[in-house]
Amino acid sequence: QQDVIKVKVTLIPGDGIGPEISDAVKIIFAAAKAPIEWETVNVNAQTGVSDEVIASIHRNKVGLKGPLGTPIGTGHQSLNLALRKTFNLYANVRPCLSIPGFKTRYDDVNTVVIRENTEGEYSGIENMPVKGVAQSIKVITKEASARVANYAFQYALANNRQKVTCVHKANIMKQSDGLFVKTCREVSTRYPTIKYEEMVVDNNCMQLVLNPSKLDVMVLPNLYGDIVSDLCAGLIGGLGLTPSGNIGENGAAIFEAVHGTAPDIAGQGKANPTALLLSGIMMLRHLGFNEHAQRIESAILTTIAEGKATTKDLGGNSGTKDFTDAVISKL
Amino acid sequence: QQDVIKVKVTLIPGDGIGPEISDAVKIIFAAAKAPIEWETVNVNAQTGVSDEVIASIHRNKVGLKGPLGTPIGTGHQSLNLALRKTFNLYANVRPCLSIPGFKTRYDDVNTVVIRENTEGEYSGIENMPVKGVAQSIKVITKEASARVANYAFQYALANNRQKVTCVHKANIMKQSDGLFVKTCREVSTRYPTIKYEEMVVDNNCMQLVLNPSKLDVMVLPNLYGDIVSDLCAGLIGGLGLTPSGNIGENGAAIFEAVHGTAPDIAGQGKANPTALLLSGIMMLRHLGFNEHAQRIESAILTTIAEGKATTKDLGGNSGTKDFTDAVISKL
Ligand SMILES: CC(C)[C@H](C(=O)O)[C@@H](O)C(=O)O
Ligand SMILES: CC(C)[C@H](C(=O)O)[C@@H](O)C(=O)O
Repeated sequence: QQDVIKVKVTLIPGDGIGPEISDAVKIIFAAAKAPIEWETVNVNAQTGVSDEVIASIHRNKVGLKGPLGTPIGTGHQSLNLALRKTFNLYANVRPCLSIPGFKTRYDDVNTVVIRENTEGEYSGIENMPVKGVAQSIKVITKEASARVANYAFQYALANNRQKVTCVHKANIMKQSDGLFVKTCREVSTRYPTIKYEEMVVDNNCMQLVLNPSKLDVMVLPNLYGDIVSDLCAGLIGGLGLTPSGNIGENGAAIFEAVHGTAPDIAGQGKANPTALLLSGIMMLRHLGFNEHAQRIESAILTTIAEGKATTKDLGGNSGTKDFTDAVISKL
Repeated sequence: QQDVIKVKVTLIPGDGIGPEISDAVKIIFAAAKAPIEWETVNVNAQTGVSDEVIASIHRNKVGLKGPLGTPIGTGHQSLNLALRKTFNLYANVRPCLSIPGFKTRYDDVNTVVIRENTEGEYSGIENMPVKGVAQSIKVITKEASARVANYAFQYALANNRQKVTCVHKANIMKQSDGLFVKTCREVSTRYPTIKYEEMVVDNNCMQLVLNPSKLDVMVLPNLYGDIVSDLCAGLIGGLGLTPSGNIGENGAAIFEAVHGTAPDIAGQGKANPTALLLSGIMMLRHLGFNEHAQRIESAILTTIAEGKATTKDLGGNSGTKDFTDAVISKL
């Protein structure tokens, strides 16, 4: 069993703290004997998504990605978006689970945001017909809505979830969000064992804040998914603790930490690698390595719960290396 | 001083629990000798916004409104929106203040949402160019953005606020939200004593959940304002506790409770009138009756803090009448 066949995946370390937290993932995964071979490629604001990166992901179909910075107002397209679009990663999956031992105002969060990742408010279709008047077009298609709705129900089935909530604002955007809701409702009838409900996005955000345990899996158009997933992350302590996966057709997927590049602490060995680690664990499960995923996840959660080797953002005094060592000692 | 000149305002009791909570407002305001004369007109799903209603508001310029129901998918325009559009009520103002004595997970919320109320995602411009493809157009104008931004800064000055945060998604909607941000930024330079900052809407929702005391006045395009104001209401306990005002030009304004019509308890004397009362208090201040506003507000907050005569949604066992009597006894 020394010769386990490793699965090659693309690793995009990212900017800022990206390289440090990527190293932590590599070290911990190696210690856990996760059968992963990393093919590292670089994406940054200068290179954009290069041919080399595209070729690597096309070959491997699966990737893990650190944070990429795109300053507002520079005009060029977000690299995050470019990756999602290039590989048609149509579903963005963001589970949020309260972490025992890391105290926030909420201890009962267990939600999953399934966000449509290709259209909606992110169409990029905009214009300025006359000076001082700007228009953006939100595009919703039945095809993309059905695809993400099906994914949400399949996810619910595969992960023993009880309920899917379709989140929308169809009382105002009767045609676009109306089409999204109607499609989700149709798809729901094919999954009789999963409860289905609909909720207006403003109410959804209020309910999440009042009583998050009422929500389970949510399926949302692109922008609402963006907003609600960050809200949910806030409930359990922030983006430093939440994984994310972008899922495409035929097994293609890129998992990513959605927090920022934290340029203020980059290169100082202070960064918390948890979000990228948890994203890597989602990747392991996607590849069928459930036992490795489970072992690494338990080690991380125990390390956080003990609180002896946590980084500053988690209330501790340790750096990336101590945290990494602590996780490894618990494998 | 028996002959104080009363100000006539339009009262739209609304559907469901609307008439009961409107009665509570009338009784309490009368007991507090608030110099208000109510002109009651009815709006409901059958009549829509009738000529009589329009004439009344045109005459009085100021109104107070209970909840109006509009079931999703009926096709006809929301009556709430119709009122806002008919009277060009361009700024929706929603203060959220933690209520001492009513415990939630947060005790330090003191935010004000100033929502652009006339355009954005609420333009109503939608189509379905081919089957299965729907488009909604979001319209942002410099004029409406400048108007609401100015209102936000004026509000901050008048209410001793320190900071205005412009909330947007200009990294994605570069033209529409870009115009909104650029305009707010320009307007901000005319108010050097008020701090100004910008925040992406997903991050804004996360920050509100993590640490609401960091936010003060927020100014937002229509839909983000809708979402963020409900989120903020959730932080302090829900829409039953939050007032709202829709402000137009030259003093025109309609104040409203933004919670639902609660058909399940309508007519049973169980409804909590707090949101409509607080909206009425915003109205009193708008009309310059600051002392009456202050007295009634203190009586309400004391009643809630004591918790002896509160309604079920506030954790009590009392009905509308007991709550009303308790408030009056504290005037
Ligand atoms: C960086 C930005 C373009 C991105 C988005 O809006 O999708 C981010 O907020 C996210 O959620 O991954
Ligand atoms: C009822 C609905 C049309 C309305 C809105 O979206 O503006 C409501 O949510 C509100 O915030 O007052």
